[in-house]
Amino acid sequence: MPELRKNIITREWVVIATERSKRPDDFSVKKEIIKTKEEQNLEKSKCPFCPGNEHMTPPEILAYKSKNNFKGWQIRVIPNKFPALSPAGELSHNSVGIYDILNGIGVHEVIIETPEHYNDIISLSNSQMEELVSAYFERYNQLKNKFNLEHIIIFRNHGDRAGTSLLHPHSQLIATPVMPKEFWYEVEGASIYYEYEERCPYCHLLEFEDQDGERKIAENDSFIAIAFFASRYPFETWILPRIHNASFSQISMKEGNDLALILQDVLKRFYNCLGDPSYNLTLHSLLKPEKQAEAYHWHFKIIPRLTTPAGFELGTGMFINVSAPEEAAKFLRESKTEVVLT
Amino acid sequence: MPELRKNIITREWVVIATERSKRPDDFSVKKEIIKTKEEQNLEKSKCPFCPGNEHMTPPEILAYKSKNNFKGWQIRVIPNKFPALSPAGELSHNSVGIYDILNGIGVHEVIIETPEHYNDIISLSNSQMEELVSAYFERYNQLKNKFNLEHIIIFRNHGDRAGTSLLHPHSQLIATPVMPKEFWYEVEGASIYYEYEERCPYCHLLEFEDQDGERKIAENDSFIAIAFFASRYPFETWILPRIHNASFSQISMKEGNDLALILQDVLKRFYNCLGDPSYNLTLHSLLKPEKQAEAYHWHFKIIPRLTTPAGFELGTGMFINVSAPEEAAKFLRESKTEVVLT
Repeated sequence: MPELRKNIITREWVVIATERSKRPDDFSVKKEIIKTKEEQNLEKSKCPFCPGNEHMTPPEILAYKSKNNFKGWQIRVIPNKFPALSPAGELSHNSVGIYDILNGIGVHEVIIETPEHYNDIISLSNSQMEELVSAYFERYNQLKNKFNLEHIIIFRNHGDRAGTSLLHPHSQLIATPVMPKEFWYEVEGASIYYEYEERCPYCHLLEFEDQDGERKIAENDSFIAIAFFASRYPFETWILPRIHNASFSQISMKEGNDLALILQDVLKRFYNCLGDPSYNLTLHSLLKPEKQAEAYHWHFKIIPRLTTPAGFELGTGMFINVSAPEEAAKFLRESKTEVVLT
Repeated sequence: MPELRKNIITREWVVIATERSKRPDDFSVKKEIIKTKEEQNLEKSKCPFCPGNEHMTPPEILAYKSKNNFKGWQIRVIPNKFPALSPAGELSHNSVGIYDILNGIGVHEVIIETPEHYNDIISLSNSQMEELVSAYFERYNQLKNKFNLEHIIIFRNHGDRAGTSLLHPHSQLIATPVMPKEFWYEVEGASIYYEYEERCPYCHLLEFEDQDGERKIAENDSFIAIAFFASRYPFETWILPRIHNASFSQISMKEGNDLALILQDVLKRFYNCLGDPSYNLTLHSLLKPEKQAEAYHWHFKIIPRLTTPAGFELGTGMFINVSAPEEAAKFLRESKTEVVLT
């Protein structure tokens, strides 16, 4: 019998359709064909994110220098060459007939995670991972107080099915001059929960999942990674900080370092269990907490792109998930955490 | 400069990023490889929706008999063999720790549109199209008053990228015991608009688009097809009835016949302009209008699956559309409407 599960934050219902369920290891995807050394070199020569091709991108905003090579960089942040939103000019309202328009003021940056084209986040060293989180933190905080910004998201698209266009490992940051509607529903839902329960729903579920253990994937001093009870997608994973905070902008250095560890830990499990699946990693954080500071709780979500949302999902916003979160969690929890890249 | 456009119904903002824009004909997708007669026969012998294989599906709920062949059927409605929601039993609430669960009571049916495996909706005759709309209407109305149902969606997944698993032309109907959250935001947004403007937002935009013409794709006595001003997806198309009605359940026979015509007209344009793209067709209709009867306006949406939503879309619910709706409308409007299937 299928089951409907309620998201305690957004109050949406998700269908967990066990009759259609695959076993967890059936989601594993095939690896790509290996390229020859010549093909690799040609690809790197054309890659705007590779060292030596810095002229192919706009000037850098931030760079962390390499410890081993004083000429090189380890992490490089640049404006997106084809920005979805652009920082030029003043925000202005306009209209076309009955409709409202805003000019697309905002920020769209690329965080190049490593100088190595064929590297990946799962094989970065601890200190490289810490620097990556540090770059996230630094850009988030530098933009935080810019006038006209309502929201900042940091995200990472990995693999074809996750909508990535460039292979070279990178994350992106987009800052918008409006509050994205669906993100706002998260905050609103959390506030309604807070009003009734007098506690943050994320703190509540974190406490429950920590004790219960059935949906736990990994944990450390500062974070817990879980398969969310009402997951929209198979293997949807939430990484929640144990310390309540509405905004990523306020984390401590210890939390930053623990975030680096758990992000890589979970992504290694994905790689081992699901064969390098496409995924989106997304930051959910309130830029201007104010009233919702007690109700909202920043976190990361990882959405592996293993299935295709179809007419039902697009037409209703309600999701059918063919995999039980408990099984996904068990499969990932029992994975080894060391990887050998092929 | 990118542009933010506001959806007057849901109040969400959509980014129209013209810098990244492709020309309309760049979205055209390649056709599939033609199968040999032997491959076709083998595929048909295994297809549960083909005539002769009726035993491979649960017993039919409804069948329209063929006019040419008294033994055969033209349209056949069956319960989905692997239902996302199932009609057995009573709706009951339950809980797991801090979470709410409902058992998955509901309806999941398949509407087989033609006995011909390699046919498609764009090459059905007028009377076949009318029968298809009639089957939609009949099932919607037969289920309408079933206790415990809050919403019914009829949808059609066409092509790999739209999440279809069986080639044989078919639509689906899912009835849910809860109101899907995102659909509800449409209704809520329309009600807020109605409260302020004292008119239905769909009627308002229909009137505007009919006069303006820039986003018009096709029209007939009862319907207008437009590229929506704040489209989330390239070539997103709305088919709106000229007569205000909150529910599809109340259309006239004339409207039903005109719906058959415009659905096929638009899908033929898609085929001609975009090379048989994957798409989802979805019905948006209020099952129990009551209070929202004046604010909400039923319609169909067609979402071609030409691009991949990535981390920004999944993490915020805000969409970046790389194609201007005005250009998409022009391209489709100027298409010929006759097709020759390859």
